[in-house]
Amino acid sequence: MQMPLTNQRKSLQPANPLGALTDLLQADLEAVNALIMQRMQSEVELIPELAGHLIAAGGKRIRPLLTLASAALFDYKGTRQHKLAACVEFIHTATLLHDDVVDDSNQRRGRSSANALFGNEPAVLVGDFLFSRAFQLMTEDGSLEVLRILSGASAVIAEGEVLQLAATNDVKTGEAHYKRVIAAKTAELFAAACEVGAVVAERSAEECAALRSYGMNLGMAFQIADDVLDYTAKRERLGKSLGDDFKEGKMTLPVIRAIARADADEKKFWNRCLGEMEQSDADFDRACAILARHGALEESLVEARRYAGQGIDALGAVEDSPLRRHLEDLVVFAVDRDY
Amino acid sequence: MQMPLTNQRKSLQPANPLGALTDLLQADLEAVNALIMQRMQSEVELIPELAGHLIAAGGKRIRPLLTLASAALFDYKGTRQHKLAACVEFIHTATLLHDDVVDDSNQRRGRSSANALFGNEPAVLVGDFLFSRAFQLMTEDGSLEVLRILSGASAVIAEGEVLQLAATNDVKTGEAHYKRVIAAKTAELFAAACEVGAVVAERSAEECAALRSYGMNLGMAFQIADDVLDYTAKRERLGKSLGDDFKEGKMTLPVIRAIARADADEKKFWNRCLGEMEQSDADFDRACAILARHGALEESLVEARRYAGQGIDALGAVEDSPLRRHLEDLVVFAVDRDY
Repeated sequence: MQMPLTNQRKSLQPANPLGALTDLLQADLEAVNALIMQRMQSEVELIPELAGHLIAAGGKRIRPLLTLASAALFDYKGTRQHKLAACVEFIHTATLLHDDVVDDSNQRRGRSSANALFGNEPAVLVGDFLFSRAFQLMTEDGSLEVLRILSGASAVIAEGEVLQLAATNDVKTGEAHYKRVIAAKTAELFAAACEVGAVVAERSAEECAALRSYGMNLGMAFQIADDVLDYTAKRERLGKSLGDDFKEGKMTLPVIRAIARADADEKKFWNRCLGEMEQSDADFDRACAILARHGALEESLVEARRYAGQGIDALGAVEDSPLRRHLEDLVVFAVDRDY
Repeated sequence: MQMPLTNQRKSLQPANPLGALTDLLQADLEAVNALIMQRMQSEVELIPELAGHLIAAGGKRIRPLLTLASAALFDYKGTRQHKLAACVEFIHTATLLHDDVVDDSNQRRGRSSANALFGNEPAVLVGDFLFSRAFQLMTEDGSLEVLRILSGASAVIAEGEVLQLAATNDVKTGEAHYKRVIAAKTAELFAAACEVGAVVAERSAEECAALRSYGMNLGMAFQIADDVLDYTAKRERLGKSLGDDFKEGKMTLPVIRAIARADADEKKFWNRCLGEMEQSDADFDRACAILARHGALEESLVEARRYAGQGIDALGAVEDSPLRRHLEDLVVFAVDRDY
C-alpha cells in the first residue's frame, strides 16, 4: 500500500535535533540558502563553480542554523540573521577550502575535495573570495558589534589552524594544547554564530554571553566527539573516512590520553605512526585496540559530555521554550551521534 | 674626509618620488610600521615569525604610503589613516603569501619566500590570519564606508587572482582580459588605498572618486611597467628575477601584443613556451628578441603612460601642493623606473 506523501516525507526526517531545528527554522534556512547561492556568484565562472561544488554537497549547515536558532530563541522578528548566517557559512566554507589544501585532503562531504578536483591554487583563492564576501555581507548588515565578533573569530580560527599545524606529528602534545587548538579552530565559530544571533535580537550583554558560552561548549563537545568518531564511526560521516586523523598524524584527545598511559612498546608505536608517519595497513587496528585498552575513547566522551553539560547550563539564562529544548538536545546529540 | 652625518644620510636618499613621499610622511610611516609590528603579533609564535619574515624584508610600502599621502593631501590632522594604512599593508601581505603558494615561488623581496622557508600550509594560514587582522583593524576604526571599500577590494582582488589563473598558459588571452586581471589583482588595492585616505579626511564624493581614480590608474601603469620589467629589468627588482612571468607562462601585455603580430614560427614558439611550458635555456633570450622586433615592450610602456596621464589628470580635482606634485611624479616614476 502506498503511504500518503506527507507521511512518507515525515518518515524520512532525521530523528536528531538538527532535523527538528531544520524543520522549525525551515523558512529562515531557505532564505539563507538562497542568499548563499546568490552571494557566492561572480563573473569569474570558476568561483561559483568551485564554491558551489562544496556548498551544494550540503553539509549539516549547523553553524548558520545556530545563528538562526539563536535569533529565534529571543523572538527576533527581522531578517538580519539571514545575511549573518550566510556570512558564518561563508567563513566556514573558506576555512574548509584552505583546510583541505593544508591537509592535502582528497575527500570532503562524501565527494572529491575542491582542491583534488580543481587544484590547490583555485581552492586557496576561492577561499579568499568567500572570506571577503563574508565581510562584505557583514558590512552590508552594518553592525560594528557583529563585525567585531566575526572578524575576531576569523583571526582566532586562523591562529587555531596554525597552532594545530605546529602540533601535528608531535607526540608530546598535551591536553591543554589540544583544547586550545579545538577551541580556536572549531568552537570559536560555533560561539560567534550563536552570539551574533543574540546580538541582532538586541539582547543584554549577559544573554549574548550566555549564547556565546552555549556555542563554545557545543563546539568543544562536537569536536571531541568528532575526534573520537575518527576511531569508531560506524556510519558514513559526511565523506570523512575512518582513520583520517591517524593517517595525518593528528594529535587528538583519545591519542593524547592513550600516550599518557602508554608502556614502552606503545610509546614506540605512537612515535613511529604519528611522529614519524611510518604506518602499515595493520597499524590503525592496533591503534584502536590500544585506545580501547586504556579506555581512552570512553574517557574522551566523558570530557565531551562535561562540555555538553556546561552548554546546557549556559542556556539556563534563557527562558524555556521548545527551541531551547532542541538546542539542549543538540549538545547531547553532538556527543552521542554515531556519525 | 668624513662627511657630516646629515649630508651623508641625505646623499643616500633614493632619487625617486617614493623617497620624497617617505621623507615627507616619515612620522606617519613610522606610526604605521609600529602598528604593523604590533598587530601582526600573536601568541601562536609561528605567525609573527612567518609574517615578520615577509614584512621585515621591507618592500616599497607603496600602498600604505598612498593612504597616508591621500589623507595628508586633504590636510587631515587625525591619526585614523595609520590604522587603515596598516590594514592595507596586511591585505597586501596576505595576498603575497597566497600568491607565492599559488605560483610556487621561491623568492620574494630578495629573500626566500615564506612558503619556501616555512611550507605552503603555514603560508596559507598566516595569510588568513593577516587578512582577518586587517578586518579587525577596520572594525576598530569603525567606518562602514571604509569597510565597504576594503572588503569590496578584497573580493575583487581574489576574483582577479582566479581570473589570472584561468588565463595562465592560455596563449589566446586577449588584451581586455589582461587588463581586467591587473585592474582587479593590482590596481583595485591601489585605488582603495587612496580612496580611504580621502574618506577619513571626510572629503566630498567627487574628491574621494578622484583619489580612487588616481590610485586605479597608478596601479594599472605600475603593473604594466612591472610586466615589461620582467623582460627588461637592469637592476634587482626587490627579489624578483628577470623572466619570472615567462617561466610561469603568464600572459602579460608585451606577450599579448607580440602574439597578435606573430608569424607562424613565432606562434609555435609562444605556444610551446607559454602554452605547453616546454622551455629551454635559450628561449627567454629569443622571447626578448621577438618582443623587441615587434616593439611590444615600447608599445606596452606607451599604454602604461596613457594610464599615468589619466592618473595625473585625476589629481586635477585636488588643490596644488608639493604633495600633489610628488603623487604626480609617482605615476611617471611607476612607468619609467628600471627596477
